[in-house]
Amino acid sequence: MLLDALLKRLIQDGGIAVRYPDGTTRRYGDPTVAPVATLAVKAGANDPRILYDPSIAFAEAYMDGKFTMVEGDLVAFLSVVLENIERRGFSGTAGLTNTLRRWLRPIEQFNRITRARANVAHHYDLSGALYDLFLDDDRQYSCAYWPKPGISLEAAQAAKKQIIAGKLLLRPGHRVLDIGCGWGGLALDLAGLYGADVTGITLSTEQLTLARQRAEAAGLAEHARFALTDYREVQGRFDRIVSVGMFEHVGVTFYDAYFATIRDHLADDGVALVHTIGRSGPPGPTNSFIAKYIFPGGYTPSLSEVMDAVERSGLVLCDVEVWRLHYAETLKEWRRRFLANWDKAEALYDLRFCRMWDLYLASCEASFRTGGQVVFQLQLSRRSDAVPMTRDYLYHPRAEPAAPAEHRTSGRRRA
Amino acid sequence: MLLDALLKRLIQDGGIAVRYPDGTTRRYGDPTVAPVATLAVKAGANDPRILYDPSIAFAEAYMDGKFTMVEGDLVAFLSVVLENIERRGFSGTAGLTNTLRRWLRPIEQFNRITRARANVAHHYDLSGALYDLFLDDDRQYSCAYWPKPGISLEAAQAAKKQIIAGKLLLRPGHRVLDIGCGWGGLALDLAGLYGADVTGITLSTEQLTLARQRAEAAGLAEHARFALTDYREVQGRFDRIVSVGMFEHVGVTFYDAYFATIRDHLADDGVALVHTIGRSGPPGPTNSFIAKYIFPGGYTPSLSEVMDAVERSGLVLCDVEVWRLHYAETLKEWRRRFLANWDKAEALYDLRFCRMWDLYLASCEASFRTGGQVVFQLQLSRRSDAVPMTRDYLYHPRAEPAAPAEHRTSGRRRA
Repeated sequence: MLLDALLKRLIQDGGIAVRYPDGTTRRYGDPTVAPVATLAVKAGANDPRILYDPSIAFAEAYMDGKFTMVEGDLVAFLSVVLENIERRGFSGTAGLTNTLRRWLRPIEQFNRITRARANVAHHYDLSGALYDLFLDDDRQYSCAYWPKPGISLEAAQAAKKQIIAGKLLLRPGHRVLDIGCGWGGLALDLAGLYGADVTGITLSTEQLTLARQRAEAAGLAEHARFALTDYREVQGRFDRIVSVGMFEHVGVTFYDAYFATIRDHLADDGVALVHTIGRSGPPGPTNSFIAKYIFPGGYTPSLSEVMDAVERSGLVLCDVEVWRLHYAETLKEWRRRFLANWDKAEALYDLRFCRMWDLYLASCEASFRTGGQVVFQLQLSRRSDAVPMTRDYLYHPRAEPAAPAEHRTSGRRRA
Repeated sequence: MLLDALLKRLIQDGGIAVRYPDGTTRRYGDPTVAPVATLAVKAGANDPRILYDPSIAFAEAYMDGKFTMVEGDLVAFLSVVLENIERRGFSGTAGLTNTLRRWLRPIEQFNRITRARANVAHHYDLSGALYDLFLDDDRQYSCAYWPKPGISLEAAQAAKKQIIAGKLLLRPGHRVLDIGCGWGGLALDLAGLYGADVTGITLSTEQLTLARQRAEAAGLAEHARFALTDYREVQGRFDRIVSVGMFEHVGVTFYDAYFATIRDHLADDGVALVHTIGRSGPPGPTNSFIAKYIFPGGYTPSLSEVMDAVERSGLVLCDVEVWRLHYAETLKEWRRRFLANWDKAEALYDLRFCRMWDLYLASCEASFRTGGQVVFQLQLSRRSDAVPMTRDYLYHPRAEPAAPAEHRTSGRRRA
């Protein structure tokens, strides 16, 4: 069987098991360790795509219910697989596909404005009800920050927003551009807790509608405005620019355009913060399951690729924080909530969608758990002295965030 | 005159002046600002090298006393020049030379072991007495860390070593490898203040001799050992690896070998810290004056180049701190001390050497002041969980460094 041949070759460290249709169970990996999880195979173990695109073969078999987990957890199973791939740079028999995909990358990722809108709609215009089934109550759809274990997802998302405000050196009255504002949660905090004037842009009509509703409801409509605008169409200058979980959708072809937007629309003494998923290893293709079903046009960059573009932009890199396990914890909690709401999700969509979403959350958790993926927070400016010389201000803030009462209708505070 | 033609074309922002041999003074740059400094030219304004290698032309004229500063400071003069170069990516008429040098880079930087020793001897085997004329009393010959303005160079160098120990998560008994240990100051601190067992390696016999003498004198010879060893010849495994101001001498050709050394000699749960000068912009040639007179074989990498190699190595990037103005402050103090000791330096060498050293310190200060150069501190590990999830431990250390009494002769503490 092709699946058996692949796993025999791939799994050297750790252990997993597979129960085949004939009732036999085979173990793979280190014979001295117990398998962490067992996959039951009803059909598809000889799908020829296991040879040239094992990721899609596995994902579609899982979505169709041909593959199911019978013992142990999907994340544990996938973590063993990913760790073996990462440790030895194993490209399986998928080398050809990967090479082809690398060549096709500029085309796959040619996210012009119209294409970008379609890509965004694919994911973010899914029913808002779906996102309520696994996200926190602020709908933060990016990595949370866990200052200590055991806190709630809500607290960890609040901590993330606080870290970002800190790195932005945010002051009342600052004009802030939020590129890829999602459902507006960060913009509302920056306006409501820190007294900033925020312009949030998104390409998702669902996100725009909800963000505007939330700003109205919070009495912040004057200070948190939202627009359906592509980053390449931004007008004006801003004291601060923030972009969380959006760079993954830019595509390598447009990295220069993205950082040029930041450079050209940032005040001379301004500060920008880009928060993006990244890969630890060298540049490589997006996982084909994620690219086909979850984020078309999406790409996880290596830091070397991001820096290539930052260096060309003329922006000054002030800091890079690498969040290694924070997204694994976030995804674990998202998946826990999703699994608890499985019936509601199935009522919204169908069983195949639910299996796909489960696999998406589980495979991402596994890839952050094993270290193949991380989050980069890049703090950028136009001048070397726009940010303090040491990072102490992030860990010993001098004062509490200003109250919203400090909103100013005219005049900007300059550091 | 060629110098006049070059400056007219180059200087748009800020202002400088030049007094020519015929007694006329010309101003360059923004006509609304006063010149920050005036260069007096006795000869050399028509040196044809101004066309194809202005950096060497300027440097040699300065070393020979044909160019002198008559009003304002050399750093201010060079800062205006560098800022204009950096802002507009101006390559002057030196485009040809730069292109040629880029192609020659793998040869220039082919720092095999024998060549590396010769390069090191060129700079670091200079009389120790010279270094005492401008460095702090611990002979820290790398960027200091200035937690607040106005502290002494000695305090800022101590702060640097403390930051490094913090990022290494150093504990008593840890086996530490210090690649490029200089005169041993860091190794002696890590052993003496933190109870580590340190092996320092250098290619400079002058550095080796002094480092060993200092370890003996401090009663730390058992815990801080030094050897004349190339990084490619290291043996054994270490809990921690640190390398400060050495990566600049590795050469792009050997970046993979350098990070492979760290990967292969670091314990599975180990932590490494690489501290190196970097450039903010895209990769480019080393300044030809620095390459010819100061650091043959040296190279200032862009972060994209460093990350290319880190990503290939399989090491996990845990943090990148970008020190922007710390080296400008350090060099300012080094130069202040050097100028105060000019007579002693001239007695050791000669006037031309002193002018060369002054230009070296001043041009480096200017390039850090304008942001063209920075320092990168990369924290690396083999495992995602080798370093805490947040950076709080760096800014809220739980305990004081352990006393040297905690040295253990057997057994290693594992986190």
